[in-house]
Amino acid sequence: MTNYPDTIEKLIVRLVKLPGVGRRSAERMVTYIFNAGVEEIQDLAEALVKVKENVHFCRICHNLSEEETCSICQDLRRNRDMLCVVEKPGDINSLEKAGAFRGLYHVLLGSIAPLEGRGPQDLKIESLILRIKEENIQEVIIATDSDNEGEATALYLAKVIKPTGAKISRIGLGLPVGSNLEYADPATLSMALESRRPV
Amino acid sequence: MTNYPDTIEKLIVRLVKLPGVGRRSAERMVTYIFNAGVEEIQDLAEALVKVKENVHFCRICHNLSEEETCSICQDLRRNRDMLCVVEKPGDINSLEKAGAFRGLYHVLLGSIAPLEGRGPQDLKIESLILRIKEENIQEVIIATDSDNEGEATALYLAKVIKPTGAKISRIGLGLPVGSNLEYADPATLSMALESRRPV
Repeated sequence: MTNYPDTIEKLIVRLVKLPGVGRRSAERMVTYIFNAGVEEIQDLAEALVKVKENVHFCRICHNLSEEETCSICQDLRRNRDMLCVVEKPGDINSLEKAGAFRGLYHVLLGSIAPLEGRGPQDLKIESLILRIKEENIQEVIIATDSDNEGEATALYLAKVIKPTGAKISRIGLGLPVGSNLEYADPATLSMALESRRPV
Repeated sequence: MTNYPDTIEKLIVRLVKLPGVGRRSAERMVTYIFNAGVEEIQDLAEALVKVKENVHFCRICHNLSEEETCSICQDLRRNRDMLCVVEKPGDINSLEKAGAFRGLYHVLLGSIAPLEGRGPQDLKIESLILRIKEENIQEVIIATDSDNEGEATALYLAKVIKPTGAKISRIGLGLPVGSNLEYADPATLSMALESRRPV
């Protein structure tokens, strides 16, 4: 039962579909939207539709792009014989923020998750192998998540990339920088111990 | 520095303006929006604009409404000699969900907050007094928030409503139902003790 006018109820129902938005936060958003300037809300509505119209996957690496190929694939200053493999386009953004990688990327658009019915054939693995061969890639860094699906995907990738002869590495797993050992979970601590390096 | 296409960056900047939405949650929303059906996103965009176009304040009680007067003011089955005074239209929805009040409402559209430069003249108090007199209201329940601004507003309202002769009450303040005394904050506990009732 709700007491909102239809127009508002319709917007709430649509906002609640967004990730991280519950009924209460949708109601707060509606209050904000109601009080905001007409232009601001029209801008927001247009921006939503434009993302659907203008953004596609990069033909080469499957990153998000407004053009046929993304800005990273187009950037000739980048190291073109290293590939970093990630699960989602958003992961590229996180890595770029860190600024520690200057090679090219390859987005799998998912991870291997048998329980959810996603196998290797659902990921962009075929085009990855093709790229490694055709672009003469020397090193592949597997930067999938450190959860079960990400680990399974990393293992599978290592197996299928091996025949290409490219050097394969997995991003380091362990205690996050700046975090407190006391509050780290056991799995992370085990991994941190296993990944110890001589100093 | 960001690595997203312009169209996406523009949407993120606009989403972050919504209450409760940070950069990270906006990025997650964009991923969802990118993967969602075109129709769903066009629906959302339309719903946003329609709220701006179709929803106004009720001429009588300042609740949100698509018509000149809201559904509660139009409902002839409600008790028309009781007014419940709230700060925001959203408060009406919470009270209606509880279903414990069957009278009419009056929305102040704010609270008295001298530090933010909001005085009584910025609230819908004049129209409240007029309604009490013209609609022959017998009882006014002050349901402003239990924070400093809400309490100050309640005190001010009690003072200016008194001359009309209407019965004035304040909603009960104390320990929330179903909550744990151990985790209640000191101010709530003091209030709960002060508001104790004989059983």
